[in-house]
Amino acid sequence: MKKILLASTVLAMSAGYAAADVTVGGDGRMGIIDMDDGLDLRFTSRIRISFAASGETDGGLTFGGSIRADNASTVDGGGDIGTAGSVFISGAFGKLSMGDVDGAAESAVGDLSGVGLTGLGDLNEVTYLLNNTAVGAVRPNALYEYSFGDVTLYASAENPIGTNEAYGVGVKYAPGMYSVSLGYETVDFGGAVGNIDHVILGASATFGDATVKAIYGDLENAFDEQYGLSLDYVFGATTVTAFAINQFDGEVDYGLGASYDLGGGASLKGGVVRNNLPGGGDATMFDFGVAMKF
Amino acid sequence: MKKILLASTVLAMSAGYAAADVTVGGDGRMGIIDMDDGLDLRFTSRIRISFAASGETDGGLTFGGSIRADNASTVDGGGDIGTAGSVFISGAFGKLSMGDVDGAAESAVGDLSGVGLTGLGDLNEVTYLLNNTAVGAVRPNALYEYSFGDVTLYASAENPIGTNEAYGVGVKYAPGMYSVSLGYETVDFGGAVGNIDHVILGASATFGDATVKAIYGDLENAFDEQYGLSLDYVFGATTVTAFAINQFDGEVDYGLGASYDLGGGASLKGGVVRNNLPGGGDATMFDFGVAMKF
Amino acid sequence: MKKILLASTVLAMSAGYAAADVTVGGDGRMGIIDMDDGLDLRFTSRIRISFAASGETDGGLTFGGSIRADNASTVDGGGDIGTAGSVFISGAFGKLSMGDVDGAAESAVGDLSGVGLTGLGDLNEVTYLLNNTAVGAVRPNALYEYSFGDVTLYASAENPIGTNEAYGVGVKYAPGMYSVSLGYETVDFGGAVGNIDHVILGASATFGDATVKAIYGDLENAFDEQYGLSLDYVFGATTVTAFAINQFDGEVDYGLGASYDLGGGASLKGGVVRNNLPGGGDATMFDFGVAMKF
Repeated sequence: MKKILLASTVLAMSAGYAAADVTVGGDGRMGIIDMDDGLDLRFTSRIRISFAASGETDGGLTFGGSIRADNASTVDGGGDIGTAGSVFISGAFGKLSMGDVDGAAESAVGDLSGVGLTGLGDLNEVTYLLNNTAVGAVRPNALYEYSFGDVTLYASAENPIGTNEAYGVGVKYAPGMYSVSLGYETVDFGGAVGNIDHVILGASATFGDATVKAIYGDLENAFDEQYGLSLDYVFGATTVTAFAINQFDGEVDYGLGASYDLGGGASLKGGVVRNNLPGGGDATMFDFGVAMKF
Repeated sequence: MKKILLASTVLAMSAGYAAADVTVGGDGRMGIIDMDDGLDLRFTSRIRISFAASGETDGGLTFGGSIRADNASTVDGGGDIGTAGSVFISGAFGKLSMGDVDGAAESAVGDLSGVGLTGLGDLNEVTYLLNNTAVGAVRPNALYEYSFGDVTLYASAENPIGTNEAYGVGVKYAPGMYSVSLGYETVDFGGAVGNIDHVILGASATFGDATVKAIYGDLENAFDEQYGLSLDYVFGATTVTAFAINQFDGEVDYGLGASYDLGGGASLKGGVVRNNLPGGGDATMFDFGVAMKF
Repeated sequence: MKKILLASTVLAMSAGYAAADVTVGGDGRMGIIDMDDGLDLRFTSRIRISFAASGETDGGLTFGGSIRADNASTVDGGGDIGTAGSVFISGAFGKLSMGDVDGAAESAVGDLSGVGLTGLGDLNEVTYLLNNTAVGAVRPNALYEYSFGDVTLYASAENPIGTNEAYGVGVKYAPGMYSVSLGYETVDFGGAVGNIDHVILGASATFGDATVKAIYGDLENAFDEQYGLSLDYVFGATTVTAFAINQFDGEVDYGLGASYDLGGGASLKGGVVRNNLPGGGDATMFDFGVAMKF
């Protein structure tokens, strides 16, 4: 995602107009994984290509979008091919995005730090109601962001199809070595279920080489809570990460991992995650390998 | 579609050969739409990435092709992945293209101007028999074009699989501020249906800031007609477009829209289209938003 | 596959880090084909876009991967999108690849030379047990290569899911105008079938403008053999290729074709292949057209 094709500038000079640019990037990984799922230790690998487009209007607005090659043909909610990516326009008024974009609460509060080459089930991620296909997201999602000083405001809405109306707001204050954030989101499921509201708080602080992040989320009408803590500790090229999270399933899951930066976009990554299952029992998953950024 | 990767030239010098180039471009859009379909006003967005390849043989022939990321994996008629794009070779003999290419009549006569961010159902498009999946197109379609002076000749054929043989020819005369065009195409459906022939005429003229286009098409063996008119009027960065069309369904549909060029590949676009349905009733559709070219 | 986006170097200087690169390439073809299959002579065309990523760590290891746009979204065996491509890391220790990579025997011995614009069924290809979906390949496949002097060693393993364990080794000695190669691979199907072993030998030699290649393969537990011979003869821009092969079906198939290099990445290609079918009867297939490399 770091490359900008400069050729358009050259052509623009000869053709008399300024063209938008498309950047080609991607990511890869190669290693071993054991998901404690009866498949035993096995290989894991993948490569994904991504495109990021950007341009600038004569009036100074920036616009663009991004999509990955592997989801370029996805028909995602709205009935259009290309909805699985996102587009944006930004200027002094803020930034407006549409497509497969996070809701306002998720944009403000985010997730805990994760571990492993593959994410190992991404248990470090808290649950948000918007842009969540499990909740019935109808894309494109629309997200508006506006920053002033150290404050960023977020507002988002999902496509209002059927009874599934979904809105969210968020705010983040990040003056430097720490941040606090607050998000609220609501989905109207209609009928007997009615509205489900989600309030979520986040805080992070950096002390020298250590960064701590804490999140607490509450489903207002369902009496469910999610909360967790993650720690990133950097020494030289190595980052060690640990997290503990109580998800809505009521069980506490743990993760521990490390990443070693090899330079040039490559890093060694490995992790162990313990997933305590609601019905009793648990799964201990681990992976290790080379992660690549192009 | 405006970027050419120049790096191959650099490599070519060191590697001692001239390589073909691949250009990465695309388009995006973000806005609101109401298709009068019970879903009410809603968001619409998408981003699509496109590739255009081109090269030149030692003898001076140019060749290449194009395909979008979202249809790169489509198996389109011919059984081959990649048939949903097209390839070409051109030189003094003309230009030969294959794949998902328009038939000769469509290449010569084209469509009326359309309106809106999304096309709003593309009702400005007239119906052609070739390269039309509704008629049973069997791709790759092959199109040959040859120009001399202000005249361009077109000939095309569809893959002759089963009884579905389909051919077309077209001619366009475009000396400057006006053009006239004529197309003929025929599909052999076999059996009792036999051949269906389509003759279509087009004309366009530019008077200062205004461009008018008219099309008349006749299905010879089915006693059906399609005809319509479109007007584009440019003042400064704004283009206003209107069209009226009597499609084969026998009803007249209307469209009105405007586009405002923001520069850099972005434009504001909006439109309203009234689709009069054959069985009575109608749908009034509208959209508005930002269109992007990369 | 010949283009490297240099822009990242420019950005790297300003951003203070070295980024990996993504190269965009592809291939196309346009012509006519008759597969002797009742569809008669017909058009054939396609265009495919490919991405090759590469980078270098601070310690001098190279890494990267490649995937085509048309298989970017394939979920290939391992459950991950992106497994249909491959990734690698290489250095003084050799090269380790994962994904849709050939097994060790195939990497060492390879296939006979093929003919035609489309490959005409790829009958020049011998059968390998690894990375073969017909045998039940479970990707990612992992391949390790190590070269010293004129010798390259290969070792590979398939993802050990269920009873389908599959391993292979290979060696190739290629001092210059000739090469000899040997491969061994084994798949454990479990149950009554148990292991199937495949031993395969290859040799090639170049005499002036002619290159001869011979392959012999033996399925140890199934009493089946495959063997064949191919000849490439180059005169100027033209290469004439012929092959004869006795595949595991017990019948001998033949192919004859020619390729004429037009320069710039384009070539004229045509071929005729006779496929003698096991149950009697045969199919004579031919094609001709323009092949393109981008």
